[in-house]
Amino acid sequence: MTPPAARTLDERIKGTRERFENDVDTWVSTASADGTPYLVPLSFLWDGTTFLISTVRTAPTSRNLVANAAVRLAFGATRDVVLVEGTAVPVEEGALEPESADAFAARTGFDPREEKQEYLYFRVAPQRVQAWREANELAGRTLMKDGAWLA
Amino acid sequence: MTPPAARTLDERIKGTRERFENDVDTWVSTASADGTPYLVPLSFLWDGTTFLISTVRTAPTSRNLVANAAVRLAFGATRDVVLVEGTAVPVEEGALEPESADAFAARTGFDPREEKQEYLYFRVAPQRVQAWREANELAGRTLMKDGAWLA
Repeated sequence: MTPPAARTLDERIKGTRERFENDVDTWVSTASADGTPYLVPLSFLWDGTTFLISTVRTAPTSRNLVANAAVRLAFGATRDVVLVEGTAVPVEEGALEPESADAFAARTGFDPREEKQEYLYFRVAPQRVQAWREANELAGRTLMKDGAWLA
Repeated sequence: MTPPAARTLDERIKGTRERFENDVDTWVSTASADGTPYLVPLSFLWDGTTFLISTVRTAPTSRNLVANAAVRLAFGATRDVVLVEGTAVPVEEGALEPESADAFAARTGFDPREEKQEYLYFRVAPQRVQAWREANELAGRTLMKDGAWLA
């Protein structure tokens, strides 16, 4: 099967931003201080600049990100990949603007403020974004560098 | 929308093994020595016991796994998750049985032996397998512990 023609940079950025706006979950990859990788799916809210995620304070993802801001997010299927390299900043429940917390709950269908367990929010700022479908899209897969979209 | 009833352990193990047999790609999460997480999709071959993957020797996944065997694999969509915690053992091209290399090429559609760049294979032995769809399946999500299926 011949894959469709490679998309242009503009097409990829458009498709990627649509995915950030419309997808509900992302794969979140973090690492512990001793170098053990961790990977779970989490719901997110994209505000046009950063991703807002939230997880239990004692969960490995929270513990990893508090100690080490480096995070990698994956969206979509393995043959329609969007990969994000970013840095995560923890935000305490009390420190998050209520509008953001409300938007997060509306988007994800769960509200960390109402959970019995203690949750932490994280704002993930993307530094690098890549997107590709098949091998013919590996060239030109970088859409954002140093936090800036390339087009 | 009410999710379907939670699957039994046997149903989950069956569905998970089918996924290992039929899926072509998996998300591979590793960490560098300094704790930077890395995440990419790679094709794999499941032989009933271990996953065979392969990537360029100089790629971050190879470098991470050579230094640190801990790996986490994710299969499926974020609302039909299979997560595998495993350990990876590098296998040089020349050390892999030709039948395995042939089966890998047939399965994945690419043959590391024919690539210009130097590739390494890795055998990933699963130690822990978890599978869930919605929140009602979080209980009972562990299907394999210490390398042994629970049923």
